[in-house]
Amino acid sequence: MSEEADFELTPLYRVHAFGCTTQRPPSHPRGSCGTAGALPLWERLGQLIEKHQLPDVAFTAAGCMGFCAAGPLMVVYPEGIWYRPTTPDDIDEIVDSHFKNGRRVDRLIVVPQRR
Amino acid sequence: MSEEADFELTPLYRVHAFGCTTQRPPSHPRGSCGTAGALPLWERLGQLIEKHQLPDVAFTAAGCMGFCAAGPLMVVYPEGIWYRPTTPDDIDEIVDSHFKNGRRVDRLIVVPQRR
Repeated sequence: MSEEADFELTPLYRVHAFGCTTQRPPSHPRGSCGTAGALPLWERLGQLIEKHQLPDVAFTAAGCMGFCAAGPLMVVYPEGIWYRPTTPDDIDEIVDSHFKNGRRVDRLIVVPQRR
Repeated sequence: MSEEADFELTPLYRVHAFGCTTQRPPSHPRGSCGTAGALPLWERLGQLIEKHQLPDVAFTAAGCMGFCAAGPLMVVYPEGIWYRPTTPDDIDEIVDSHFKNGRRVDRLIVVPQRR
């Protein structure tokens, strides 16, 4: 594509979520989303996206995004909303409310602070 | 936080980039970003963000985002811009132009198509 082109881009996904899959040993001082139980939650999330046939919603496994003490941690773009789900019900609510209906789930939002 | 709260959220990052680190065997029919040379590029990207001290810019390693034939593949949010850098110079340009100065690098953009 030309460097001078001023073209419009259609977003590929309406919702693109990333969930941390970092797994540190349980004794590690930083903790990790894996130790906090993230992996089965992300697995459920992926299954629900498939089950509900949401082609404009994607979930991608991610490495450490920092804020390890706040895990299990996920971020949803383009809004840049950070969630900390801890139960299967939390995952169901994120999918039903946010991913399907565009209503963020305030009770699960965390606001990480940059150091 | 209350479920009824209607609060504003300040984005944590001005730029949050995700790069695919999936590594499949070279003979795998889907290919992979790792096989396409992604890993040293993402390493350089992370080093440049640190070197230029861009606290509102983050890079996160990611799993497969699909579109494996288009790798090395990265996506930059909140804009949702997909890039296919292949050389260290490409990485430098993305950091200088997009991450530091907010000007996307049209020549490196790819437009993945959902199946």
